[in-house]
Amino acid sequence: MSSPRDTLLRKFAADLGLDPAEAIVAVPKYEPTVEHDGQLFVSGQIPRLRGEVAVVGRIGAETDIEAGRQAARLCVVRALMAVRQSAGTLERVQRVLRMNVYLRCAAEFAALSEVADAASEILYAVFKPDGGHTRTTVGVLQLPKNAAVELDLLVALRPPERSYSTF
Amino acid sequence: MSSPRDTLLRKFAADLGLDPAEAIVAVPKYEPTVEHDGQLFVSGQIPRLRGEVAVVGRIGAETDIEAGRQAARLCVVRALMAVRQSAGTLERVQRVLRMNVYLRCAAEFAALSEVADAASEILYAVFKPDGGHTRTTVGVLQLPKNAAVELDLLVALRPPERSYSTF
Amino acid sequence: MSSPRDTLLRKFAADLGLDPAEAIVAVPKYEPTVEHDGQLFVSGQIPRLRGEVAVVGRIGAETDIEAGRQAARLCVVRALMAVRQSAGTLERVQRVLRMNVYLRCAAEFAALSEVADAASEILYAVFKPDGGHTRTTVGVLQLPKNAAVELDLLVALRPPERSYSTF
Repeated sequence: MSSPRDTLLRKFAADLGLDPAEAIVAVPKYEPTVEHDGQLFVSGQIPRLRGEVAVVGRIGAETDIEAGRQAARLCVVRALMAVRQSAGTLERVQRVLRMNVYLRCAAEFAALSEVADAASEILYAVFKPDGGHTRTTVGVLQLPKNAAVELDLLVALRPPERSYSTF
Repeated sequence: MSSPRDTLLRKFAADLGLDPAEAIVAVPKYEPTVEHDGQLFVSGQIPRLRGEVAVVGRIGAETDIEAGRQAARLCVVRALMAVRQSAGTLERVQRVLRMNVYLRCAAEFAALSEVADAASEILYAVFKPDGGHTRTTVGVLQLPKNAAVELDLLVALRPPERSYSTF
Repeated sequence: MSSPRDTLLRKFAADLGLDPAEAIVAVPKYEPTVEHDGQLFVSGQIPRLRGEVAVVGRIGAETDIEAGRQAARLCVVRALMAVRQSAGTLERVQRVLRMNVYLRCAAEFAALSEVADAASEILYAVFKPDGGHTRTTVGVLQLPKNAAVELDLLVALRPPERSYSTF
């Protein structure tokens, strides 16, 4: 019953130690996602794992590049879990339009792209051959709860029930 | 004549010391808003009040969390004033799609979400029961004119004259 | 054969030392642009020039405001080259919807808007009289490859072959 993309997402989530059935819960003051006119906006995700922020500190100082890459993977998988939760299935994703990646890093750390690549690689794997997306990566001073990475997504969705469409 | 949402916005503006009739002026080099195909983009707003930036400095250092929350309120109310100015009335807002919140904060300040919540609370109050929105909050090194907070919005608008629509 | 906008872009590129025929190449892990439903998203651009990052360091420390403005010009011209490459011609641009400008700057540098203005001026010049756009400018701790500026764009495109349209 599970689609190829949803199966892959479940595998990535399990590999990272995430519970694939975990709901990306609505926080009190904003929503995990908002859908409008074929676009699904996903709120900024931090590397939460079993109720805690798994990777904190500055990449290149208190934490290293490989931990940063793992944090980026956790963020993007959580973002995709939010997409699946809202859209029903990742098969409705027509295209990932944009990913913004914010890294908390040391002042002289310059390998930002290498960290963000870990998230992009998962998008390519899940949406192959349509995983292409635009990306902006910046190094910031701080992130919520001292997280090492935060990222958000904008994806284009197909209508939920294409088979009923008469267009 | 004034709609419930516009009335609420006027109240929030007055409570913050803003002149509700103040125009969010076009700066020389960019526009306060651009509308396209049902989406209204709002430029980054800083906490201007009576011609000055009301809250400057780093949250958690030169200024504190409550001043940061007040700055966030000023920014979001100014953003909504820009929406009303462009759209004619806030009643045309169908949904707030995304809010990006940038906080100038001390390196160890981690309560970013608590500051951004002050802006989200106003969105929920004005657009109740449809105030849900996606949000990304990051802590940056600097903002224009040393402002403590900057935020931008993307909202979905209904057509201006729905009653004339034949669709 | 070249349109007025494409000619202007070529001139700006040449003035900055860029090769106007240079392809904004697809990097391995993401795309320079993604087009969807009349919107073209452009990935974050840094001031690359002849294979190197032309302006690095913190504006207001290792580099100065005029170098920052030159970096902003390089970034926006590269972003427009990516638009032209994807859309075929800048004449298809209906509107620039948003520009996000990230500046790597010293902690006390506050003239962020003056740096971003250099990019906005080029948008006004190329798309006159429709160069108006929304903008958000923030000062960040770090950017990929120590770049002094990074910026991304979202533009609205007209359909590619308007003359065939029956609407």
